[in-house]
Amino acid sequence: MTKKNAKHGLFISFEGVEGAGKTTNIEYIAEKIEASGQEILLTREPGGTDLGEAIRELLISKEFPEMHSTTELLLMFAARAEHLHRKIIPSLEQGRWVLCDRFTDATYAYQGAGRDIDLQNIQTLENLVQGTLRPDYTFLFDIDADIGLARAKNRGETDRFEQQHLDFFNRVRSAYLKMAEENPQRYRIVNAQYDLQTVQKQIDTLLGQIIQ
Amino acid sequence: MTKKNAKHGLFISFEGVEGAGKTTNIEYIAEKIEASGQEILLTREPGGTDLGEAIRELLISKEFPEMHSTTELLLMFAARAEHLHRKIIPSLEQGRWVLCDRFTDATYAYQGAGRDIDLQNIQTLENLVQGTLRPDYTFLFDIDADIGLARAKNRGETDRFEQQHLDFFNRVRSAYLKMAEENPQRYRIVNAQYDLQTVQKQIDTLLGQIIQ
Repeated sequence: MTKKNAKHGLFISFEGVEGAGKTTNIEYIAEKIEASGQEILLTREPGGTDLGEAIRELLISKEFPEMHSTTELLLMFAARAEHLHRKIIPSLEQGRWVLCDRFTDATYAYQGAGRDIDLQNIQTLENLVQGTLRPDYTFLFDIDADIGLARAKNRGETDRFEQQHLDFFNRVRSAYLKMAEENPQRYRIVNAQYDLQTVQKQIDTLLGQIIQ
Repeated sequence: MTKKNAKHGLFISFEGVEGAGKTTNIEYIAEKIEASGQEILLTREPGGTDLGEAIRELLISKEFPEMHSTTELLLMFAARAEHLHRKIIPSLEQGRWVLCDRFTDATYAYQGAGRDIDLQNIQTLENLVQGTLRPDYTFLFDIDADIGLARAKNRGETDRFEQQHLDFFNRVRSAYLKMAEENPQRYRIVNAQYDLQTVQKQIDTLLGQIIQ
């Protein structure tokens, strides 16, 4: 699908449950990488393109609370296909680093572990849409689900996903930790329970191993 | 996925290129079946549910002319999953006959033959979304693509699909005829080039074999 060559950029995804401070920390990481002279594309899933954002609206809308789990899975991958072919792959080929707020591991965690969707179906769609393309690195912002959820609630209105039960977020967190364990080369775990300064120190150390 | 039993309704899909008179003829068929005392669900794809209609809007919108073919395929099947699980299967289980304006064969014809999407990918999604469920009967309204297209243009504004070249519609028509040849038990071909009265005579004959 994509050929690695000297100019090929790194593909970094960011994962974690709600309230793990993902958004703030991604901005911090983006600034650090840009400061090193590297061009970046900062993007997010679901969304990332005009059509992807329109699909994202359907996914987080409260209008469709009874959405079937297979429908949700297909919409996620529809937005992902558009994002991948229109933005991520072209950017990587131009030598940019792509920083993506959530990617396919979020589907395994939220739809797979959270909603009990057959992991085999997710894998089928991952292969159909991505071929062999996977992130080079995945930063997991790890936090106790109850602490994360309390933080997310303090931010204001919760969307359809954030209305799920605590048990759901516990399953999501466990799924992320399991993927991190199974993919130690790719995963970088940030303990997100500490204050911002302590979290950013961890990030500095991890980034130091990636930015040359 | 669905068990056939005494109360299980028939699932009938309707296919054909633009301008084949599908809409008019489906209404005629629906009236005939209802007149026989049979309860029906008259529906269409893509769409058929509130969420499905919202997805349909994305698919036919002129806002996204550069939609990637894989995205289009996944959106089609997302709408289909919702339609199947929320309307088609429950209706069949209640003993209704489901009359559906386009179904998965349209994906094989338009996305597969028309846009050259890997048929294997379509088959993968068909199995993922439908399990073993297929229509009991498929009425194909067959017409020369150039005649059909001229009729569609006369109806007024053309949407994104109708702006395709004639060559595209020729490939679509050939794909339908091939599926009809491969599935003679399921397919019923209506020659749609004649005037309405002649077409409806053909329909009467074909329906006579289905309605007891």
